[in-house]
Amino acid sequence: MNKENNPICKLLGIEYPIIQGGMAWVSGGGLVGAVSAAGGLGVIGSGSMTSELLRHHIRKARSITDRPFAVNVPMMYHRTAETIDIMEEEGVKIIITSAGNPATFTPELKKRGFTVLHVVSSVRQAVKAAQSGVDAVIAEGFEAGGHNGKQETTTMVLTPAVVAAVDIPVVAAGGIASGGAMAAAIALGAVAVQIGSLFIAADESSAHPAFVEEVLKADEGDTMLTLKELSPVRLLKNPFYEQVQEAYKNHATVDELKELLGKGRAREGMLCGNLDKGELEVGQVCMMMKKRMPASEIIKEVIEQYNSTLERIKGMGI
Amino acid sequence: MNKENNPICKLLGIEYPIIQGGMAWVSGGGLVGAVSAAGGLGVIGSGSMTSELLRHHIRKARSITDRPFAVNVPMMYHRTAETIDIMEEEGVKIIITSAGNPATFTPELKKRGFTVLHVVSSVRQAVKAAQSGVDAVIAEGFEAGGHNGKQETTTMVLTPAVVAAVDIPVVAAGGIASGGAMAAAIALGAVAVQIGSLFIAADESSAHPAFVEEVLKADEGDTMLTLKELSPVRLLKNPFYEQVQEAYKNHATVDELKELLGKGRAREGMLCGNLDKGELEVGQVCMMMKKRMPASEIIKEVIEQYNSTLERIKGMGI
Repeated sequence: MNKENNPICKLLGIEYPIIQGGMAWVSGGGLVGAVSAAGGLGVIGSGSMTSELLRHHIRKARSITDRPFAVNVPMMYHRTAETIDIMEEEGVKIIITSAGNPATFTPELKKRGFTVLHVVSSVRQAVKAAQSGVDAVIAEGFEAGGHNGKQETTTMVLTPAVVAAVDIPVVAAGGIASGGAMAAAIALGAVAVQIGSLFIAADESSAHPAFVEEVLKADEGDTMLTLKELSPVRLLKNPFYEQVQEAYKNHATVDELKELLGKGRAREGMLCGNLDKGELEVGQVCMMMKKRMPASEIIKEVIEQYNSTLERIKGMGI
Repeated sequence: MNKENNPICKLLGIEYPIIQGGMAWVSGGGLVGAVSAAGGLGVIGSGSMTSELLRHHIRKARSITDRPFAVNVPMMYHRTAETIDIMEEEGVKIIITSAGNPATFTPELKKRGFTVLHVVSSVRQAVKAAQSGVDAVIAEGFEAGGHNGKQETTTMVLTPAVVAAVDIPVVAAGGIASGGAMAAAIALGAVAVQIGSLFIAADESSAHPAFVEEVLKADEGDTMLTLKELSPVRLLKNPFYEQVQEAYKNHATVDELKELLGKGRAREGMLCGNLDKGELEVGQVCMMMKKRMPASEIIKEVIEQYNSTLERIKGMGI
């Protein structure tokens, strides 16, 4: 992988085209600093953070590395304007926006000098984002952890479809936890990958150790997209997930589902380690994850696997 | 792609590691002969066929090419033993088994000299198949059309997981309708691909033209996995699909769903072109398909795209 030839490396000023997924409750300053120091793009998950906590995490990341990092901002939160002010004050110039309508906020962000990447789960959203002036899109497939699209389009199908539809760089996300999968994403037309789940198990992740242990034990079929009537979310099966399934069996209404979900369950599960009552957001690919590693090792291993995958394919002859 | 280096090409005696999905009501002798003549592996979808019809389609394929082709046999049908006898009589020595327990039928098939490929949708099934002596597995992801696994594991995640779990060649299926996706599958560790949806729109396909037209018009989100309580199946949304959704809203029981489904709906939709009442089985990737082509053109185009994808990746530098 040659940095000079890669539009995402050039755009973001990073060494390897690996963006760490900005996961609420998981990616704080420690993880983000470690990822960026290792040549990827660390991304603070600000969704959950008060302004002061965000400032703390930005400074923590900065204390670890002087390389670029970013903040992920779900644009439907009430705290968005303040978050962006803090990013500006603290000199973080890469923003990864998710949710919300990019047409309403992208022009302002670009005027203020931000590099903007928008997370999408459909071609339609990608085209909208490109038209509103974002610098790149992150196309996230059905297999990804956490919140997800209603169309259920997988990374294998979504990536080339988005690449064909927009003229800006496309980052593939969902199901990517190895250099082989990274090479697959590049084959599909992406120029970079976003890796989430694998960084949950990074040594520097803020995820509760009990949650990480569950992630590493997970087998195939242990995550499922659910709560589709509210906002589809991929969760690790646990007693809370089973409670939701029970509610479906009892023909729960949307309001009843909302009440059951309540507030703060992701924090409860992922940060506090309440494995029974919490929401445990992680991608399908956790079935392939077996151990914890420092973030720098994760990046090193993915790049090594990427290179050996390319060697293997070349050996098959063209 | 060098045939000598590819275990599936060697195993099956084909030129390109492309297996055409054996789709009931779609892949008869005409399509199968054309695919095999063009260097792939044509596969008759026998699920739906009477013995005489199967014999007819085998002879039709043989009249087009003397290259190898196969028959797909869903092993839970009552007609299985007869189907296998006919294959033997007609000299078709490659069988693609699906459904059923490979431990019960593989030893007998191997004893009779068949090359056996088994279709799986999970690592567990793949390991079972390998243990029972099949020559290769076809791992089919969530995005694939038609019948599918309960775990909902996508091609991006399933392929490397199966490759890591078995020592026999792995064919990737689901979401593959281009040479870029083929290169992605190879990057994920598969040594060949199975392509289904794209061949529905082959000139030689037996699919009803009205069904093909719907497939080519389909957009993202237009297929969905449904009837999960019976046997999960990916269908193109149509009035029958909406009827199923309506039944869910009315809390239909499994028996009510079975009654609603009835028998023969796939034939009705895909062969007879009843777009309202039929089951229209096709993969997510149909959103990328725009035109009909001869099967030989499909294979040529996929191989050309595969080669140009590899050139593009190499150009990015390792």
